[in-house]
Amino acid sequence: MKVFLGIDWGGTYIKAGVVDNQGIVLEKRFFSSPDFRKKNIFLTRIGFLLKDFKNFKIQAVGIGAPGIVNTRKGSIYYLPNIKGWKNFPLKQKLAKYLDVPVFIDNDANVFALAEARRGAARGKSRAIFLTLGTGLGSSIVFDKKILKAETSAWELGHVPVVLKGRKCGCGGRGCIETFVGNRYLLKRYKSIRKGYSEAGDVEDIYKKALKGEKAALRVWEEFSHALGIFLSGMINIFNPQAIIFGGGISGAFKVFKPMVLKEIKQQAMWPHLKGLKLLKAKAKDAGISGAGLLAKESMNN
Amino acid sequence: MKVFLGIDWGGTYIKAGVVDNQGIVLEKRFFSSPDFRKKNIFLTRIGFLLKDFKNFKIQAVGIGAPGIVNTRKGSIYYLPNIKGWKNFPLKQKLAKYLDVPVFIDNDANVFALAEARRGAARGKSRAIFLTLGTGLGSSIVFDKKILKAETSAWELGHVPVVLKGRKCGCGGRGCIETFVGNRYLLKRYKSIRKGYSEAGDVEDIYKKALKGEKAALRVWEEFSHALGIFLSGMINIFNPQAIIFGGGISGAFKVFKPMVLKEIKQQAMWPHLKGLKLLKAKAKDAGISGAGLLAKESMNN
Repeated sequence: MKVFLGIDWGGTYIKAGVVDNQGIVLEKRFFSSPDFRKKNIFLTRIGFLLKDFKNFKIQAVGIGAPGIVNTRKGSIYYLPNIKGWKNFPLKQKLAKYLDVPVFIDNDANVFALAEARRGAARGKSRAIFLTLGTGLGSSIVFDKKILKAETSAWELGHVPVVLKGRKCGCGGRGCIETFVGNRYLLKRYKSIRKGYSEAGDVEDIYKKALKGEKAALRVWEEFSHALGIFLSGMINIFNPQAIIFGGGISGAFKVFKPMVLKEIKQQAMWPHLKGLKLLKAKAKDAGISGAGLLAKESMNN
Repeated sequence: MKVFLGIDWGGTYIKAGVVDNQGIVLEKRFFSSPDFRKKNIFLTRIGFLLKDFKNFKIQAVGIGAPGIVNTRKGSIYYLPNIKGWKNFPLKQKLAKYLDVPVFIDNDANVFALAEARRGAARGKSRAIFLTLGTGLGSSIVFDKKILKAETSAWELGHVPVVLKGRKCGCGGRGCIETFVGNRYLLKRYKSIRKGYSEAGDVEDIYKKALKGEKAALRVWEEFSHALGIFLSGMINIFNPQAIIFGGGISGAFKVFKPMVLKEIKQQAMWPHLKGLKLLKAKAKDAGISGAGLLAKESMNN
């Protein structure tokens, strides 16, 4: 059976697995390192993984990288959370460890591929994908494909929603990420509930909102207002059939979905709203599966 | 020779022409009517045009409509500046006047097609197209194509750039159109230059800025700030090779280009900026030519 190696590369971990041509993960490994700034730690680990999986006939390797990638060259422009990878020719450097083709894309594009083929957007022609966590990852499927630019593109998280905003990790200001990221939600909750000092997390604010706590509800209302206004613009551009919510914060989907939908119905142009669905992500092992599917679909092109 | 009929339909006019398979306009007509709310005036006029051009072997008709279109069905969702066309099956109604296929799209998509094939974006894989006038029309070329959704899509002008903004003609609030449209620029100029009561137009503000008038320069600075912040978001999504500026306000390109570029360089993520060009539109008879090209390219699909 033809199989693919899918690599989900995070700030401090590698999840890797053998993926079949349906995107199903047959076997997987987890490896954690606090120091991927040292590129050799990453590169040699990929070599080990291939030895680990030597009983499989791996046709190609797919990697979802936590940053901006040149998808054509397979090089890294930069990784916001790992220093030292600026303009690094990853594909070229991996050549000595690999005797099969390797394809590299942004982790959000890889996540979207898993959701489009096996998850919540299965069968949809056009969808918007968001991974809500510390940052706001994103991708677009159009004509059932993740279209290729020179960069990994589709950085919807870095669309400004105010003209003079807070500094964002990307170097710009006022990006939607600065209104819906983890850190921002916690900070906002603390500023509304003065005196609150528990080391809470976003799940905590979610649970409190479910119980009807006013401060928590207000945080989710503001979150939904910003996200809804932003998404309306994206709907006016792409006329998607679905918007898929993944990442840690999507655990609160039940709380924010009706609020986001209300904003969208007020803001977006009505012809684009027909049949639009807001859905929670559901592909299993999306990072590994999507990276495997990236390898498979890139081989077929 | 195979030729196509291209129709550039505005709020109060029809420009129509015979277009060859390169997009060159061989012969054209102009017709003006203040009352396209009466659909029969429009429909019978298309019939007359076909008679006018009966010596040409017209293969198909392309129409650029001033509003939101269902490109698959060839129907009109609505036209912001002409009442009474809500959910109108235009293609179906035209069938009795035409014995050739008809293809309908949004006027900004048609403009973009002309610029992509014969104008400033010729040869580019990915470009953003803006028509700056009363409203902000827009389109996207990706993989050298204007990708088809269910609606005519690509309504970048209705991306909000503030979270609580002024009412926009689209029904939403705070869209970029409300910061860069004709009316807004004039209003802003009058509010800065208190006491100014000349019946000036945007060209006037442009000329005054060239002469160094402070109030006029400030209007263009604010315009460029908003446009630059907005475009940075679009650049982070699409990684375009060019942004093409058309429409009446693009007459002031020389004044606003350096200011917009400065904003973009501060705001957009650097990997997306490589080789990006800001260019003025240049296709001749873009509306007619693009509509003819729409007909030609739709026949080939």
